[in-house]
Amino acid sequence: MTDTVNRRWLLAKHPEGMPDASCFTLETTPVPVPGPGEILVKARYLSVDPYMRGRIGRSKSYAKGVEIGEVIRGGAVGEVVASNHPAWAPGDIAETMGFGWQEFAVLAPGGSGPDGVRKVDPALAPIESSLSWLGMPGLTAYFGLLDVGRPRPGDTVVVSAASGAVGQIVGQLAKAAGCRVVAIAGSPEKLAWCEELGFDVGIDHRATADLCAALREACPNGVDVFFDNTGGPIHDAVMKNLALHARVVICGRIAVSSQPGPDIGQRFNGHVLVARATVSGFLVFDWWHRHAEAVTRLAALQKAGKLRFREDVLDGIERMPEAFLRLLTGANLGKQLVRVG
Amino acid sequence: MTDTVNRRWLLAKHPEGMPDASCFTLETTPVPVPGPGEILVKARYLSVDPYMRGRIGRSKSYAKGVEIGEVIRGGAVGEVVASNHPAWAPGDIAETMGFGWQEFAVLAPGGSGPDGVRKVDPALAPIESSLSWLGMPGLTAYFGLLDVGRPRPGDTVVVSAASGAVGQIVGQLAKAAGCRVVAIAGSPEKLAWCEELGFDVGIDHRATADLCAALREACPNGVDVFFDNTGGPIHDAVMKNLALHARVVICGRIAVSSQPGPDIGQRFNGHVLVARATVSGFLVFDWWHRHAEAVTRLAALQKAGKLRFREDVLDGIERMPEAFLRLLTGANLGKQLVRVG
Repeated sequence: MTDTVNRRWLLAKHPEGMPDASCFTLETTPVPVPGPGEILVKARYLSVDPYMRGRIGRSKSYAKGVEIGEVIRGGAVGEVVASNHPAWAPGDIAETMGFGWQEFAVLAPGGSGPDGVRKVDPALAPIESSLSWLGMPGLTAYFGLLDVGRPRPGDTVVVSAASGAVGQIVGQLAKAAGCRVVAIAGSPEKLAWCEELGFDVGIDHRATADLCAALREACPNGVDVFFDNTGGPIHDAVMKNLALHARVVICGRIAVSSQPGPDIGQRFNGHVLVARATVSGFLVFDWWHRHAEAVTRLAALQKAGKLRFREDVLDGIERMPEAFLRLLTGANLGKQLVRVG
Repeated sequence: MTDTVNRRWLLAKHPEGMPDASCFTLETTPVPVPGPGEILVKARYLSVDPYMRGRIGRSKSYAKGVEIGEVIRGGAVGEVVASNHPAWAPGDIAETMGFGWQEFAVLAPGGSGPDGVRKVDPALAPIESSLSWLGMPGLTAYFGLLDVGRPRPGDTVVVSAASGAVGQIVGQLAKAAGCRVVAIAGSPEKLAWCEELGFDVGIDHRATADLCAALREACPNGVDVFFDNTGGPIHDAVMKNLALHARVVICGRIAVSSQPGPDIGQRFNGHVLVARATVSGFLVFDWWHRHAEAVTRLAALQKAGKLRFREDVLDGIERMPEAFLRLLTGANLGKQLVRVG
């Protein structure tokens, strides 16, 4: 083993509003040593995901928050460099959401939850896919759309952050399910990618003055399924265009997650009642027991040419905060990753 | 036939905000004459329901609105006084939601929807029950709680307007399903009735300064099912106390239905996401095809002593607007009816 130091990002302070560089500290420590039954993994790709904003903030979320001075939690895929576990050998590829923003981690194989350590088959797809369309974002799209959104052929499906890690898959699964897909994204480049993916209509929310009217025009029969990755003004505009018995999947709130204080604005219970709509909070971890099913199905769709995916890769662990801010401000195009090592 | 005049209430103007007497005009016309296949029904009880506020307003609702000069739509139960239909004879009891605020209506038997004309069995229960626990409000509670709220034994079920036409049944069905019931109502008298019905905790929302804290205390494990009949501040307080995987049934919005303009306030998508809750708009008419099932089950529960019901009856068709305003301001205790003839 040639590496002797492990660089890792600690939380320096809880952000109020939009995080900045002062929230993060890069620390250098010795590479940890695996104990009995453990493996040492060297990261190849670190995942950058919107949920991390919730974890480093102060407000209640669905997961335990990161304390000041702790390594920021997050997923990664990497190579086993030392193993004290009979089922793992150096060279194996491991993926887990419990890696952390660091170059090396000692992991205990086993565990079926998101923080469990999964062996990745490099023959199936590039290993970074296990952080994107074959991993958490892919599962989010798969269960959120298919099990919660329940699309039917002919449905109009609106997806926000449509070129993002989750949105790309949502739209393509909806197309595969026979739906019409209306993509909302924040730049012409993002919408060009959506068009390439076969989505039917694209709306640039940054270039559209009246989003509600644009959606009304794009969805003359109303919105049957709304896969909401952002919250905020996009959410509001779609809620005014629900079709009868619409399903709204509240998956992400990146547009409001950095706003301090309660979320004040127009409420849509009247719209929900008139449309007899269903608004569901969705968290992929509740569906994790079906991980293998989703991976199998997504891989099959990809093999059949029905699933393409775009990543946005920065190089070097020192760029993690930059990558994270790119994501929070929507500067990335596709799944945000950082390549390390 | 001794009666020669029919008194009926027309909409004089669309209310802005809370309706008042000037919105309604009492008109006297000749008793109508049934044509071939039709029956003439003399009302015994007219139903007074919150949904009527939506129908007489200007904003979009789930049903066609009432135009100025039209008879206000509403349900009634009454006696057939003349019949040109082979299946109906004078003396039969008929119930329909398509009767109108009037003493006499010519009806065309047949039709399976809410405006269809149903024969009422006077041996089953007092005929006015067909407007309350064996009718639309009973069905609302039955399908809204059991099919949308999906209560499980041990769940904490919160119901607003708990002594109202729908709330009484919701609470008793929840008790029958093994749940703990937290009743929210607007007076000590209403809560005394809720206690008599066996509901576990009562909260007087008019006498409670911090409703959110009161609910937190009443629901230490959170709210599993929220049957929302009111919207407004009660809704807001409950939404801050959702348990994991809570189900929220948006059934009525009487607290806000008379507010002009959009409903501005705190939004709860963050709470819905963290709790992975489901918020569903509910309209009983979507479940009307299961009318017979609900009536059979509710009648059986009542026979088994598990269902009691309280009505609030005013006498005389001239009191319809008064009865309606009682309902909108929460002055009634139990299902509001007007006895006529």
